Amino acid sequence: MTDVAEICGRAKDAAPALARLTAAEKNRALEGMADALERRSDYLTECNADDIERARADGISSTLIDRLTLTAGRLASMADGLRVVAAQPDPVGEVVGGWRRPNGLTVTQVRAPLGVVAVIYEARPNVTADVSGLCLKSGNACVLRGSSTALASNGAIVDVLRHALAGAQVTQDAVQLVPGTDRASATELMQAKGFVDLLVPRGGRALIESIEQHATVPHIIDGDGNCHVYVDAEADHDMATRIVVNAKAQRPSVCNAAETLLVHAEIADKWLGGALDELAAKGVEVRGDERVRALWPNAVAATDDDWDTEYLDLVLAVKVVDSIDEAIAHIGRHGTSNAEAIVTDDLKAARRFTSEVDSGSIFVNASTRFSDGGEFGYGAEIGISTQKLHARGPMGLQALTTTKYVVWGDGHVRE
Amino acid sequence: MTDVAEICGRAKDAAPALARLTAAEKNRALEGMADALERRSDYLTECNADDIERARADGISSTLIDRLTLTAGRLASMADGLRVVAAQPDPVGEVVGGWRRPNGLTVTQVRAPLGVVAVIYEARPNVTADVSGLCLKSGNACVLRGSSTALASNGAIVDVLRHALAGAQVTQDAVQLVPGTDRASATELMQAKGFVDLLVPRGGRALIESIEQHATVPHIIDGDGNCHVYVDAEADHDMATRIVVNAKAQRPSVCNAAETLLVHAEIADKWLGGALDELAAKGVEVRGDERVRALWPNAVAATDDDWDTEYLDLVLAVKVVDSIDEAIAHIGRHGTSNAEAIVTDDLKAARRFTSEVDSGSIFVNASTRFSDGGEFGYGAEIGISTQKLHARGPMGLQALTTTKYVVWGDGHVRE
Repeated sequence: MTDVAEICGRAKDAAPALARLTAAEKNRALEGMADALERRSDYLTECNADDIERARADGISSTLIDRLTLTAGRLASMADGLRVVAAQPDPVGEVVGGWRRPNGLTVTQVRAPLGVVAVIYEARPNVTADVSGLCLKSGNACVLRGSSTALASNGAIVDVLRHALAGAQVTQDAVQLVPGTDRASATELMQAKGFVDLLVPRGGRALIESIEQHATVPHIIDGDGNCHVYVDAEADHDMATRIVVNAKAQRPSVCNAAETLLVHAEIADKWLGGALDELAAKGVEVRGDERVRALWPNAVAATDDDWDTEYLDLVLAVKVVDSIDEAIAHIGRHGTSNAEAIVTDDLKAARRFTSEVDSGSIFVNASTRFSDGGEFGYGAEIGISTQKLHARGPMGLQALTTTKYVVWGDGHVRE
Repeated sequence: MTDVAEICGRAKDAAPALARLTAAEKNRALEGMADALERRSDYLTECNADDIERARADGISSTLIDRLTLTAGRLASMADGLRVVAAQPDPVGEVVGGWRRPNGLTVTQVRAPLGVVAVIYEARPNVTADVSGLCLKSGNACVLRGSSTALASNGAIVDVLRHALAGAQVTQDAVQLVPGTDRASATELMQAKGFVDLLVPRGGRALIESIEQHATVPHIIDGDGNCHVYVDAEADHDMATRIVVNAKAQRPSVCNAAETLLVHAEIADKWLGGALDELAAKGVEVRGDERVRALWPNAVAATDDDWDTEYLDLVLAVKVVDSIDEAIAHIGRHGTSNAEAIVTDDLKAARRFTSEVDSGSIFVNASTRFSDGGEFGYGAEIGISTQKLHARGPMGLQALTTTKYVVWGDGHVRE
């Protein structure tokens, strides 16, 4: 039997016991996991240093090294995330809704765990703890398949978490890491039908395409983040600059960073030049359409490809639009349903933007960088869904559950 | 351009306007559609008679003829279904949840239409009206692809509904029927990526397998209904008989009819013989394991295949079990996650069955035949999901929506 098959089998076997854990039992384990991450901080950063050294030797880009890096501070955030997850209500058994039918039948819709959740992810080792915590709280077993880049970090985190699970009398099979990081192990996981109830890929285009091509298990696409900021005619100038700079430059390597700025023509001549100066001061390369370049000649000429590119770097595409309709249409054509923001003081514009833009998260006067399970208060996230079915936007505990109808009668039969 | 491509394009174009319809506008159209079905009842049953005549000539089975048949009574039920849909709250714009973050950001999760919903279905022409009504109320355009058997009936129903839509000033492209019923038109619909936001197949194993093989659009499996009734040791004898007879024989051709009866050994000798006599009197063929045949010699010997067979006919597999654990384990191995029932007066048994059985709908002291959107109060159903993601069990309006996060700030940026 392969490693993946054996791990999936153990996860499947562990699932019913995990589904029956009480909230108190799960929270005790989560607190133990959080404490262990902090207590073993030195050990974990040492293991992480090995990964970073190897990555540097392999010439990995600085944005990927940033994603890979664990610090005592980031480990404390991971631990805090687990504590926030512990503090959330248990989703399992939640009665989502219920009613009595005219014939006296009582219909209730109740939340239940999915069973086995698998996640294939790239560099970021915090995903290891985030996914483990969310899956445990939602009564699921998880199968983790990280990247070779983070092999030592992920292995160490999983060891620490499994030790904490054992200390809380929870089966260690709740959290398992696939030892191999070759392509075959990922493909096998994508096809573990009957064993994996949900697969979430967290990675770039190549991973998504591989999922679309090979996956036979249920999955949710955590896709691209071609995020937009639209600065409306009625935007506050300082606020617009602050939000655009934050959305682009605060952490450009992540999927909720802005990639395109759309500016209403009425505000462009007064505001755009100053804002682009500030972006340039942060090292951002601006690629603008003709109207942008007329106002700010330092901009590189944007090509059609720029409107569809997720740079994940200090590059921003900028376009002047004549109306909110044009902005909404542009986002409809080029957006990837991740996160879009409007900066405006005009309530009508805000109402139109929030109702007509089709995206996972829509921000009014706030940075797209808030499209994040932690920032939404979920403690952590399993990923950001860019599809419409099951879950959309940052996924927390609810996304890891299904529901069932439980119907109570007194001998009811259908006429 | 093919018919399917043209129809999907029109549906996609119609979607934004349908998403913006107010509840009042949609309800007016639904009332008009309901009235039209009743007013044109003679015309519709005449068109249906053509289909039935052709089906009889083709030697179609009596259960399929039953599914195909429209009567004034069934048309009135379809109209009533549309009125119940009209009476339900508009799911579009529903604020599913919301909260304020410590930093003052207001996070809301809001329901939105999916866009274009396609349904591929077999004989039953009532699906045409049910899907049209649910899609309209949830702000979606629908593309219907029925079977050749019901071609005249479906065409007539869609004509009547589109006429009613026009009368209510709603675009007729909200409801479209694919004219072809060849395999190519189904496959094309399964691969209309970027046009179809949700595809629901309603049909047998061959259709499901075709979807699993060909579909590239998001879809929900409306799968088999190998439904179980478990008669517990503490069941009321009369109630148990009434429920088993109803679950099996009231309408055996549908997916929520029971296919397997599990009987606790402690009640089997006192109760089973009489119950099987009543089933036999209704024309039901019993296939029993050895212990069943010892108690009731008329039973045919069940083979292993019987536990996995959805007969959709007057045939019932029957097995004696020694405990509720054995019943739960049997359902876990052979169930298809559609509907399962327990008959018991023992609260502990009911609590265990409802929490440990993994199925879309679980009934306590009620027939599996209630696993139905109409019976749940949804007015109609888009299908019964037998998968865990997005929707599970009978699907009503909510299953036809997605959500988006709308987040309000005052210039918030991330630190």
